[in-house]
Amino acid sequence: MDVYLDNAATTKPLKIVIEAMTKTMESFYGNPSSLHRKGLDAERKMKEIRKTLSREIKGRPSEIIFTSGGTEGNNLAILGVLAHMKGKNRRIITLPTEHKSVLNTFQELENNGFEVCYGKVDEKGRVDLFHLEELLQKNTALVSISYINNETGVVQSIEKIGQMMRENCPGAKLHVDAVQAFGKIDIDVKQSHIHLLTASAHKIHGPKGVGLLYIKEGIPIKPMFFGGAQEKAIRPGTENTPGIFGFGASIEALSKNKREAYESVLALKEYFVQRLKEEIEDVVYIKKDTGDESPYILNVSFLGVKSEVLLHSLESKGIYVSSGSACTSSEQSHVLRAVGVAAEVIDSAIRFSFSRYTTKEELDYTLNQLRIIIKDLRMIMKR
Amino acid sequence: MDVYLDNAATTKPLKIVIEAMTKTMESFYGNPSSLHRKGLDAERKMKEIRKTLSREIKGRPSEIIFTSGGTEGNNLAILGVLAHMKGKNRRIITLPTEHKSVLNTFQELENNGFEVCYGKVDEKGRVDLFHLEELLQKNTALVSISYINNETGVVQSIEKIGQMMRENCPGAKLHVDAVQAFGKIDIDVKQSHIHLLTASAHKIHGPKGVGLLYIKEGIPIKPMFFGGAQEKAIRPGTENTPGIFGFGASIEALSKNKREAYESVLALKEYFVQRLKEEIEDVVYIKKDTGDESPYILNVSFLGVKSEVLLHSLESKGIYVSSGSACTSSEQSHVLRAVGVAAEVIDSAIRFSFSRYTTKEELDYTLNQLRIIIKDLRMIMKR
Repeated sequence: MDVYLDNAATTKPLKIVIEAMTKTMESFYGNPSSLHRKGLDAERKMKEIRKTLSREIKGRPSEIIFTSGGTEGNNLAILGVLAHMKGKNRRIITLPTEHKSVLNTFQELENNGFEVCYGKVDEKGRVDLFHLEELLQKNTALVSISYINNETGVVQSIEKIGQMMRENCPGAKLHVDAVQAFGKIDIDVKQSHIHLLTASAHKIHGPKGVGLLYIKEGIPIKPMFFGGAQEKAIRPGTENTPGIFGFGASIEALSKNKREAYESVLALKEYFVQRLKEEIEDVVYIKKDTGDESPYILNVSFLGVKSEVLLHSLESKGIYVSSGSACTSSEQSHVLRAVGVAAEVIDSAIRFSFSRYTTKEELDYTLNQLRIIIKDLRMIMKR
Repeated sequence: MDVYLDNAATTKPLKIVIEAMTKTMESFYGNPSSLHRKGLDAERKMKEIRKTLSREIKGRPSEIIFTSGGTEGNNLAILGVLAHMKGKNRRIITLPTEHKSVLNTFQELENNGFEVCYGKVDEKGRVDLFHLEELLQKNTALVSISYINNETGVVQSIEKIGQMMRENCPGAKLHVDAVQAFGKIDIDVKQSHIHLLTASAHKIHGPKGVGLLYIKEGIPIKPMFFGGAQEKAIRPGTENTPGIFGFGASIEALSKNKREAYESVLALKEYFVQRLKEEIEDVVYIKKDTGDESPYILNVSFLGVKSEVLLHSLESKGIYVSSGSACTSSEQSHVLRAVGVAAEVIDSAIRFSFSRYTTKEELDYTLNQLRIIIKDLRMIMKR
């Protein structure tokens, strides 16, 4: 049995996504910038998808820019908006638990004279709103916080943060990395006062190599690179139409019954946690049940069993999980360190990340294998 | 009959490309950074393709960085290499006939204090080597010239330029935009003293959204954006594996009999030009037969017939051509202006761009339609 539980790293593209991409390459292969019908057909189809994607976050089609994915989107949002914000406002705020594509970009900005502040997070990974409010001084230019953390699964109070920013630093912009949230929870960019939002197709059963950046109307963004007039010259280059059409197919499939999927994944996760608790000893749940966590992500630590050893043992049974974010798989998780998890707990941490297509049978199989493997590995360790 | 003669704008992906992408998405959908087998399988396959692609230009696999396409590649090469070249060398050289992704990047650099010099081109679009040699002063940091121009089809003497640079400004770097050349002509980065080379998959029957940048070993490149460690952190972000695997499939198909394809396209082009000359009056050949032009591109002007009118008339017969580069389709071609083509000739210019899959039957159909359409349009104009 093959059980893929690494859906926060990437997902398996849906059949309809592959079909949409195949159809694009067979029949809509024109360059959207071409003046003839082959170009116009591609351009028209792209327009439809822009509409579908914008609806998902309650934005407008004209506010959507296609990118090559989450990393580019996060960088374009952060670097692009700051390049146009002249003046004395040099404070930029993020969390120590953000993805490397945000943290490393902030590092670069710090090298270039920006004042970087890190908000505090509690032991569950939640941003400390009181501390954040202290940081939100008038000289704040940008706040970048992810909707759902990719390792702990914590859902941040974006709407509250947006409100606090309006009161304390109305000139500052709010960027939200929604890579783990888009297509999974309800997002309303207007209600949450979001100025910039990043999403990626391959985290929601779409193709790799494509994503979107929402840019609120009227906010100038300096491109990271230069060329033709595609995507309002904010993101030049021939559009990845197969990728974009695949992205459209995936969000259409996922948007329909997002709430039901959420509930069903939540029930599965609760079932999984319940059985883990009953059947396996010495398990630390890194993100406890606080009501503000994504059902799609579960980070647990099987004390005494090294993450990598467990990962490969599970793999030998066809079960695929992660020992942290795929993008930083070679180091100890900076996220878990930032939320104050003890080193020995991090060393044993495993991230199970679910999909709406995850089944109870898959979890039963995983639990049965886990029980045996953990027992065996702990026995070996004791020798 | 559908005749697609806009292959310099983009090409129709091959069946084996679509199959490779489908297979990737069905079976190799793991994140290459994941530690488990699903990740390692993707990583291993990517390594193979890096090898295949590097062979094509006689480089090494470790010198290939995957990008999202030509525009990103050109920008990363130019901005990335200059960011690391400290000191007094601020002269950068290009041609006025380059693609917008080079020209607009140079414009940006000029705004940031670089001294931008434009080499002269003759009426055929060829760089004036004597003039270029004068420009190649000791303070030159970078020269960026395309292998094959996307509008005129002229093939530049890259090897000679590389040699001249070694003699006149050995510290300078040579960047070659090979988007129209890669997979079509023999390229040897070592022999031509090329430091940086850009290619794109969708110009050679591969997918959109993927390309490569060759970076000669030892040349430091500053990334345009920041994140994980993918592509040596020069180009972070989850790799577009379906795109990369499709790119690999396309180059494997095209590399095999590149020379034969070149000869057969050349014969077709000569046949097409011969019949044009015999059957249609008042045609101006923008790039005359000088032996240094790509057989894949033909730019001709049907005097008295506006490009766009002809483009749409041909389209109504299922024939797809271009009135210039797709990326700048809304303006008059800066390339043709730069090579000194008269305004009224530019107004009537049409680019036919062929593929190795273009057939004689398609060209016969095109010629027959052209003869009728041109006659009709000229009659209407005379009224």
